[in-house]
Amino acid sequence: MKKLINSPEQVVRDMLDGMVAAHPHLKNLPGTQVIVRADAPVSGKVGLVSGGGSGHEPAHAGYVGKGMLDAAVAGEVFTSPTPDQVLEAIKAVDSGNGVLLIIKNYTGDVMNFEMAAELAEAEGIRVAKVVVNDDVAVENSTYTTGRRGIAGTVFVHKIAGALASRGASLEQVEEVANKVIRQVRSMGMALTPCIVPAAGTPGFQLGEDEIEIGLGIHGEPGVYRSKLMTAEETARTLLERILEDLPLSSGEKAAVMINGLGATPLMELYIVNKTVSELLKERGIAVHRTFVGPYMTSLEMAGCSLTLLKLDEELTDLLDAPARTAAWNQ
Amino acid sequence: MKKLINSPEQVVRDMLDGMVAAHPHLKNLPGTQVIVRADAPVSGKVGLVSGGGSGHEPAHAGYVGKGMLDAAVAGEVFTSPTPDQVLEAIKAVDSGNGVLLIIKNYTGDVMNFEMAAELAEAEGIRVAKVVVNDDVAVENSTYTTGRRGIAGTVFVHKIAGALASRGASLEQVEEVANKVIRQVRSMGMALTPCIVPAAGTPGFQLGEDEIEIGLGIHGEPGVYRSKLMTAEETARTLLERILEDLPLSSGEKAAVMINGLGATPLMELYIVNKTVSELLKERGIAVHRTFVGPYMTSLEMAGCSLTLLKLDEELTDLLDAPARTAAWNQ
Repeated sequence: MKKLINSPEQVVRDMLDGMVAAHPHLKNLPGTQVIVRADAPVSGKVGLVSGGGSGHEPAHAGYVGKGMLDAAVAGEVFTSPTPDQVLEAIKAVDSGNGVLLIIKNYTGDVMNFEMAAELAEAEGIRVAKVVVNDDVAVENSTYTTGRRGIAGTVFVHKIAGALASRGASLEQVEEVANKVIRQVRSMGMALTPCIVPAAGTPGFQLGEDEIEIGLGIHGEPGVYRSKLMTAEETARTLLERILEDLPLSSGEKAAVMINGLGATPLMELYIVNKTVSELLKERGIAVHRTFVGPYMTSLEMAGCSLTLLKLDEELTDLLDAPARTAAWNQ
Repeated sequence: MKKLINSPEQVVRDMLDGMVAAHPHLKNLPGTQVIVRADAPVSGKVGLVSGGGSGHEPAHAGYVGKGMLDAAVAGEVFTSPTPDQVLEAIKAVDSGNGVLLIIKNYTGDVMNFEMAAELAEAEGIRVAKVVVNDDVAVENSTYTTGRRGIAGTVFVHKIAGALASRGASLEQVEEVANKVIRQVRSMGMALTPCIVPAAGTPGFQLGEDEIEIGLGIHGEPGVYRSKLMTAEETARTLLERILEDLPLSSGEKAAVMINGLGATPLMELYIVNKTVSELLKERGIAVHRTFVGPYMTSLEMAGCSLTLLKLDEELTDLLDAPARTAAWNQ
């Protein structure tokens, strides 16, 4: 296992230290694995909390900052954060206007965030929850009942964060987050597996000429294994599956994310985007913006996911609003 | 060779198409591998041109935009762009105020950019050149006389770009670029090699428990091979070598870049930064800003480089000035 780490047991702790050292707008709540905005709680604003297992960097602490999240809770690698950690995050970002939890749909995450919400409510904090399930690959997976939450979650952070920073109410922020969830779909593929540091060996195996279509961000099985495809075939496969589930007609508008899973160079992601942009153009679908890069990774897995978000005027405006975070600046 | 590509022969062409499709502020000069600002030439401004072999994305087209470069010339993978392509870039960005070429120190790049400069001067365009040689690993390498240019080049783009966008003269922009070059140093290490698509096999081999300290961004040999080290030992090794060459005293100020070579996840880069930030603090060196991510890659090589830029008031101000590009937004 070749990794730039100190020991498998301390990867999350070390990473959070390195992250806070790099980004002065972030702070680590003492004694926790919770990263919050250094100026939290922000007066008059609904607080936004997300998180989940580590290994998906820059998700989620990379999205903490002005215009996006107020806190991110980091579990161990590919492991849900505990309810007490989530509770600390909620308490740290509540300014009296309530807190929205943005949860990726994994059974452990949903359970632990819900438990934290109950504990917070018992302390008099208003909490709302949304569950992101953008992955169209499979209906149920190893770790999930219903569809999984993957890279589309980042659009929820961005758009709900923008509305919250304009002073909207908890109900309004929850509503727009659910609107994004209804209109966002993703699907991924992998060329190589990744190694959880504490395990030391790959979570699955792929042959030299094999890829996995539709796998999850923890290496959960996808739709099928295939012989190595061209970038064009890959892009077409992912896009067609997404469009079956999210009908977009000629004249409609979308945002596109070509997300790298960790070890895929930008060169390859742009090559995938060439085909995605051509296919969308053929169908008359207008691409408002395209995001290419590592937004929601799986350690050093090679592969990518494609995300489409159907836009209307409200979502476009919020997507384009300013944000200042480690991984999303505009 | 597992890559998300269509064919080894068309990777650069496909990538540029995908890049321009993703980023409407960029355009591809017809019939070339030159990416320019869509609004080039910018009236009243010195033009900035960089480039080199492809495979280092987001370098350099990812740095084309307001406040940084006006054009980037993309050679084939790890291959210098030809003089005629560089000439096209120069002509496209010259607004009558002259053009600065920012060249990484590789023999082929230097030769071809110099030839292009002569051709442009023959057409009446004023051209200045700076050569970046930030890599402290080795004095001469496979492809270079003198030290190589690596990730520190991105700081030259940023700072020279900021001064140019304020309307400075060609001489002033050249001078500040040379000041950055004098004050920036880098050193890298690799865990795994990368595969040039047209070659199909790795450029070098590393054992399962071996790393290469000080290698170049094309896999050129470095200082030595070592047994796998911890992130802390790696950070210390790179930092100490840099500080031998760039003495920074207690009370002085620096910018830090922890650059991923392509396949190294952000988690590991942040773990490296934990140690770098601690060691700099011990020495009393103030870190003004830290940049963590893939800034100058080597296809899917795993590993990282560390860059330190010594800052004074002028460089700090220009580093913090606004920029709008695909890979650097602030």
